[in-house]
Amino acid sequence: MQESAYVFEEIAELLSMSGAEKGGARNVTDEDLGIIRDALMVCRNGRIEWVGEKSKFKADQIRALGNHKTVSLGNATVLPGFVECHTHLVFAGNRSEEFEWRMQGQTYQEIAAKGGGILSTVRATREASAHELQRLAQARADRFARQGVTTLEVKSGYGLNLESERKILEVASRLSGPRIVKTYLGPHSRSPDHPDLSSYMNEILERDLPEIAKAKLADRVDIYIEKGFFDLESAHKFFTKARELGLPIAAHVEQLSDFGGTELAMQFEPLSVDHVVYVTEETIAKLSRSQTTAVLLPASDFYLKMKYPPAREMLDRGVRVALSTDFNPGTSPTQDLSLVGVLARVEMKMKLAEVLTAFTLGGAWALGRAHEVGSLTVGKFCDFSAFEGRWQDLFYSVGEHPVHSVYKGGEKIV
Amino acid sequence: MQESAYVFEEIAELLSMSGAEKGGARNVTDEDLGIIRDALMVCRNGRIEWVGEKSKFKADQIRALGNHKTVSLGNATVLPGFVECHTHLVFAGNRSEEFEWRMQGQTYQEIAAKGGGILSTVRATREASAHELQRLAQARADRFARQGVTTLEVKSGYGLNLESERKILEVASRLSGPRIVKTYLGPHSRSPDHPDLSSYMNEILERDLPEIAKAKLADRVDIYIEKGFFDLESAHKFFTKARELGLPIAAHVEQLSDFGGTELAMQFEPLSVDHVVYVTEETIAKLSRSQTTAVLLPASDFYLKMKYPPAREMLDRGVRVALSTDFNPGTSPTQDLSLVGVLARVEMKMKLAEVLTAFTLGGAWALGRAHEVGSLTVGKFCDFSAFEGRWQDLFYSVGEHPVHSVYKGGEKIV
Repeated sequence: MQESAYVFEEIAELLSMSGAEKGGARNVTDEDLGIIRDALMVCRNGRIEWVGEKSKFKADQIRALGNHKTVSLGNATVLPGFVECHTHLVFAGNRSEEFEWRMQGQTYQEIAAKGGGILSTVRATREASAHELQRLAQARADRFARQGVTTLEVKSGYGLNLESERKILEVASRLSGPRIVKTYLGPHSRSPDHPDLSSYMNEILERDLPEIAKAKLADRVDIYIEKGFFDLESAHKFFTKARELGLPIAAHVEQLSDFGGTELAMQFEPLSVDHVVYVTEETIAKLSRSQTTAVLLPASDFYLKMKYPPAREMLDRGVRVALSTDFNPGTSPTQDLSLVGVLARVEMKMKLAEVLTAFTLGGAWALGRAHEVGSLTVGKFCDFSAFEGRWQDLFYSVGEHPVHSVYKGGEKIV
Repeated sequence: MQESAYVFEEIAELLSMSGAEKGGARNVTDEDLGIIRDALMVCRNGRIEWVGEKSKFKADQIRALGNHKTVSLGNATVLPGFVECHTHLVFAGNRSEEFEWRMQGQTYQEIAAKGGGILSTVRATREASAHELQRLAQARADRFARQGVTTLEVKSGYGLNLESERKILEVASRLSGPRIVKTYLGPHSRSPDHPDLSSYMNEILERDLPEIAKAKLADRVDIYIEKGFFDLESAHKFFTKARELGLPIAAHVEQLSDFGGTELAMQFEPLSVDHVVYVTEETIAKLSRSQTTAVLLPASDFYLKMKYPPAREMLDRGVRVALSTDFNPGTSPTQDLSLVGVLARVEMKMKLAEVLTAFTLGGAWALGRAHEVGSLTVGKFCDFSAFEGRWQDLFYSVGEHPVHSVYKGGEKIV
């Protein structure tokens, strides 16, 4: 590969997140955004080599750069690329009609009887060709990229058997645009191929998970722990196996009730615990002392008209927090980061600095990638977006995405 | 002007809204959407001359068209252009920092003391040149157009004196893109030029309103009736004067309390009553027997974390309902129709057919334009949008606007 060096300039303000990075993305204030005015950033072979005030970049440094290209960002505000850390991106079919039924008061049982619910997505996803899934997923990945997402987590979980889960993860591997982090979520729901949850879990433990690990199909594994879904005993076996296989873990926990999933997962040092709506004060205290990131998904709480997670309590206690869309066709059919950010501010009283950290470093921590993405500091990937207007105007107007360009590893992707 | 005739074809489905139109946009069901499959629409000099199934458009009709242009819409779903009937589009300045203060629990008094609140927008709007206001407002009008809006109401109300209100209405007159309906909202708030509300109201009654009418600067007038804003007595005088001057009326009513604004306004046969959150059953019954449209603005309820209006009760009683963003920098800083539609479905239990009607015919009724826009039937303006995908997928995913082209009077504007 040819060596490449870029100098990015005409940056009105650059939010490096340096303070937030030092503090491990905990207890963030405006000062931690590491704002650099009239900034310049040097990128070599995809990594940040220098970043700071343009006036401090000296003539001898410019000479030392050697062959390079200068890119003007037109007086933009530059932020680290957003890390979207919880999506169910790869699926076929559509549940908009089911949404109408649900909003008009039909029960899950009635909807399931009409062929709706998660199993309708599983059916459509199994039937779809890899090619068709790829087309759908790429359009969605592009939609995220246009909002400034440069790292995108993608879960499987609409296959519910090895063959289809593999198809989904392979589709995810081939996505272009943002960096992709793949999560195996085989234990997402009951599988139509098994009489019960434990029979499916046995297959996961004995065959699917080892196979996923061996083929290196996933970067992480995830499970849906909840009443009526996978119980604590199954989850314990799943995490034990994942640890044996060297796979980092995440978990869907405490979304609908105080079921105990967070406490169980914490025994296995998970990268993230996701949803965490019904967490107790004790669990919050434990989280604050851990390296685990709490991933908050307020868009699904919004669509389901459920309670929002106790974000303020978590943040004030020093828990590391990430925000994400939870994009999926059933409970959170939106890819809009601005909705999530506004919900965080309006419904969860998060400060803007906390929202910006949650969408960058928070997500990076949740995915185990904080060493390479989530902030704009020397050595990290040169992943960033250039915005029109001021950073103070972000996550204020739902539907406004004043992104004018997006770079991954110094290369323009939007 | 040269005569122009267009034939629009390759329309997978066209929602004419013919049934909703016949029923005066009340008690709407899916059948009232007037869906035509494999449709064709003929437009002459900006008006719809023929619309129906392509197979029913006969050879002699094609011959009778004379000179015409055929436009393929690529198998799109076609809907009447949306009528966005309540916006405060023309303003300068920004209140994103105030949003942070408010979300973090500061009171209106504290924010006003820092120079925030509506008067900060008034200050910025007065100071801005007409040119600068035009630039800002046009960008916002374009953002609405890209979502399929072909008729756009624009209120004044950030001038609070004749000179500045006039400047705002003149800016609105010069907007390109959607059809513009201008509303004079002089009585929006206390004016900084007057010691109290009644002194400002006297000036409005004696000078401003007659001047606005004489110069034909507005199509309608509006007033903010609420505790601490304009009271019932002032509103009565304002409506009386407006009626004398032949100006149709609208009113901001019952947003924060059951203040009585709706009942008062109803005595003057208003085009619309807007917000109507705290309306009683008796008032709803009265509305259902009137020609007045209830304009629901759930995005402002969302941002303010207030109660939503009793949409279900209104609709079930046969009240004519419109939906709109209430776009403004203070309480509803969003232009996103998908957010409004999803809020209508999730928070107000509106059916999709009701949402579609509210954004088309409902808005048209609210603006007194139902004779020319809001549906795709013979004689109306040929204002429509072509969407990718099915109509059932609209107003489901916040932030998704699958509009691929927008036409006003048969001419492409997006």
